[in-house]
Amino acid sequence: MKQQKYILPESEIPRQWYNLAPDLPTPLLPPLGPDANPISPEMLAPIFPMGLIEQEVSQERWIDIPEEILDILCRWRPTPLRRAVHLEKYLNTPARIYYKDESVSPAGSHKPNTAVVQAWYNKQEGIERLTTETGAGQWGSALAFSCSLLGLECKVFMVRISFEQKPFRRIMMQTWGASCVPSPSEETAAGRAVLEKMPDTPGSLGIAISEAVEQAVTDPSGKTRYSLGSVLNHVLMHQTIIGLEAKKQLALASETVPDVVIGCAGGGSNFSGLAFPFLLDKINGAEIEVIPTEPTACPTMTRGPFSYDFGDIAETTPLLPMHSLGHTFVPPPIHAGGLRYHGMAPLVSQTIVEGLSTPRAYNQMQCYESAVLWAQTEGVICAPETSHAIAAVIEQAKLAREEGKEKVIVFCFSGHGLMDLVGYEKYFKGELSDFSLPQEDLQTYLDAIANLPQPEIRKTGKW
Amino acid sequence: MKQQKYILPESEIPRQWYNLAPDLPTPLLPPLGPDANPISPEMLAPIFPMGLIEQEVSQERWIDIPEEILDILCRWRPTPLRRAVHLEKYLNTPARIYYKDESVSPAGSHKPNTAVVQAWYNKQEGIERLTTETGAGQWGSALAFSCSLLGLECKVFMVRISFEQKPFRRIMMQTWGASCVPSPSEETAAGRAVLEKMPDTPGSLGIAISEAVEQAVTDPSGKTRYSLGSVLNHVLMHQTIIGLEAKKQLALASETVPDVVIGCAGGGSNFSGLAFPFLLDKINGAEIEVIPTEPTACPTMTRGPFSYDFGDIAETTPLLPMHSLGHTFVPPPIHAGGLRYHGMAPLVSQTIVEGLSTPRAYNQMQCYESAVLWAQTEGVICAPETSHAIAAVIEQAKLAREEGKEKVIVFCFSGHGLMDLVGYEKYFKGELSDFSLPQEDLQTYLDAIANLPQPEIRKTGKW
Repeated sequence: MKQQKYILPESEIPRQWYNLAPDLPTPLLPPLGPDANPISPEMLAPIFPMGLIEQEVSQERWIDIPEEILDILCRWRPTPLRRAVHLEKYLNTPARIYYKDESVSPAGSHKPNTAVVQAWYNKQEGIERLTTETGAGQWGSALAFSCSLLGLECKVFMVRISFEQKPFRRIMMQTWGASCVPSPSEETAAGRAVLEKMPDTPGSLGIAISEAVEQAVTDPSGKTRYSLGSVLNHVLMHQTIIGLEAKKQLALASETVPDVVIGCAGGGSNFSGLAFPFLLDKINGAEIEVIPTEPTACPTMTRGPFSYDFGDIAETTPLLPMHSLGHTFVPPPIHAGGLRYHGMAPLVSQTIVEGLSTPRAYNQMQCYESAVLWAQTEGVICAPETSHAIAAVIEQAKLAREEGKEKVIVFCFSGHGLMDLVGYEKYFKGELSDFSLPQEDLQTYLDAIANLPQPEIRKTGKW
Repeated sequence: MKQQKYILPESEIPRQWYNLAPDLPTPLLPPLGPDANPISPEMLAPIFPMGLIEQEVSQERWIDIPEEILDILCRWRPTPLRRAVHLEKYLNTPARIYYKDESVSPAGSHKPNTAVVQAWYNKQEGIERLTTETGAGQWGSALAFSCSLLGLECKVFMVRISFEQKPFRRIMMQTWGASCVPSPSEETAAGRAVLEKMPDTPGSLGIAISEAVEQAVTDPSGKTRYSLGSVLNHVLMHQTIIGLEAKKQLALASETVPDVVIGCAGGGSNFSGLAFPFLLDKINGAEIEVIPTEPTACPTMTRGPFSYDFGDIAETTPLLPMHSLGHTFVPPPIHAGGLRYHGMAPLVSQTIVEGLSTPRAYNQMQCYESAVLWAQTEGVICAPETSHAIAAVIEQAKLAREEGKEKVIVFCFSGHGLMDLVGYEKYFKGELSDFSLPQEDLQTYLDAIANLPQPEIRKTGKW
């Protein structure tokens, strides 16, 4: 039995990104500054280049992809759309399962789809150096790769515990010429302040964000900017090339509109990349079930309220309208590090509020079980994040079998698991478990959100 | 500047393997048994299935690839041929550099090209279980992957020191359902004998081969066979799909015959896979420089004599006619584990003796320097083995610049380096060095070869 793959020629690569914002039934709420007033694009100029800020606030549905960016993306794009015929056979399902294989990029995930774009727009405006933060290193390695290709310097603040315990993506960053330091570091005021109080801290994404932003905005040359790998509107838009390609490839497979679209969501970027182009069809009347998936150990979308919250623990970001568990929430140590984020992209959050997408949460053990079944049928070892999409796919395929329906399921295979094998090892050894999060444990974090200013949220009757 | 890639549609995948043996100017010498007489195909039947033994001794130039095998290979084949325009630009060379990207397989290297085939032929003859040995795990993981796809059991004896120090490919094997044990083990007479004498031994490929062969030939059900990842004629032939695809892709790139063909060679399989189809053109009169590359720390082809030698330290294999440093030679601990083998495939060895290929050796530091330059120009992190091909490519590209010649260089990008990042880390930290091998240190091993029976070698005047 032959695995089917649908390869798009380079000439067919999408030449515009899709911006969901203007098609939302209700306009996006603005981010708020420290004074609880909406922040203006100009206030973001010390942090991001204007080219990206314009995209962040754009109400254009289609935005041209510069030719030079397409040239770089074509190093590994268009990515294959594959049909998982061996999993289908194993499950004895009438469903047809397609997956968009984003693991084929040199960094091993979908992240370079936006990293390359951000590096390019910064370079256009004379920026010479980008700073960012990274947890396990998925995003940091994608940005290091992209800066290497474009001749920009790259400085990555890596959460100290990951810097020490997960050296491999750090070595990837160094191989691509990036400078990678453990955070908190002595290089920034924010880092020094933390170290003075807690010299042995393992670090956190919140601290690392503060350090990266500080180095960007305080560079006296003005040639440094900051780069973020998910959550923001422009980042999600850059990822829509995934879904736009997938649509063309489904047509090659003689499929029309899929019945179910699935992606795992930490900050929301790979899910959005695949799903938003299909949401356009749904908004125009197509019947599509759109499912962002998350860990039960970090149930942002399924148990966090839609509200204004900070993007980081240190409260340095604007207040963003999003599903959130509270910015001080620290998820249990599941292996899907990229899904351990307290918030969800505002665009994704609003699709949930509008009823356009329906999130589901999966336990760690079910996800690893799904990942191993995937490896032994489809032959590829997936990232622990991606296993949260696969768990949902298997659930939907079984449902189709019970209903006797020939459903078409499409999901985003966001990354391979070759840098994450330690989690598999622990799973085989029986050292992993599920985590329950009793409501009383969550409540403290949720209470903190309720105490933040929520003016715009309150204004809109339907929120 | 756009990277150029040449994608072959699945319908264009080669449907026959190329067997170099009948085209060699002088017939291949036979393997010899313990009594120094040529061994017959039947003597191999307890170890390999007849379908593969027939290929091993075949004098047919073209051998059909079964359709079912093509279906499996098409999960990741045809692989891309890419042009390294960014490296060319960096080197300011008039050379056009093409690379066949074998890193895109699920196991990350060219090894599944033969692992899948071997598993399939075994399955046809009712075999239910394959045994093999592995060092760092490149081959073991490819066979585990292939057995998983075909529903065979897979038992891998992994050299103990690698089992303990390099867990990642072991976890890959386990994820694909293989059983992986450290060698020497208590499971075989060979393993127990070693453990009795040396309970703390780090193990060796030689011991692991003995264990794997023993388990295959002593299975009372007769349903177990042994599988080897390089060196043998049939293994090299399975890899020729690489070069046969590359030829079609060069035509897509409007190139005719290349000037230089390069591949790294440990046992010889990825080099042969790319080079043998081009050697056919060379035998027919084309001017092509064919370069197998190796580490100066294990200079099998450049300093080892062509002679009969054992394939393993334990002297359990037949005597094979090959370039060899002596079967008791233990190479210095360079990071390119796949190139640490004392011998070279008989077919490759004979191309050297015939003057059809010209081996070159490279130092470890030059190879890492080349690998980092590659990552920062072409964007992909290569395996340490592959860096030995890249070092030669850079040397040839500089030569073309000096000569002012528009040479076409093609090489095999045999694998990615994502499982081998520790070597890069040590390189960045300045912890690596080159190894010199004074002739007096080699001489003991070479003397041992001279004392082996060399009847067939002596018979042929030209050896």
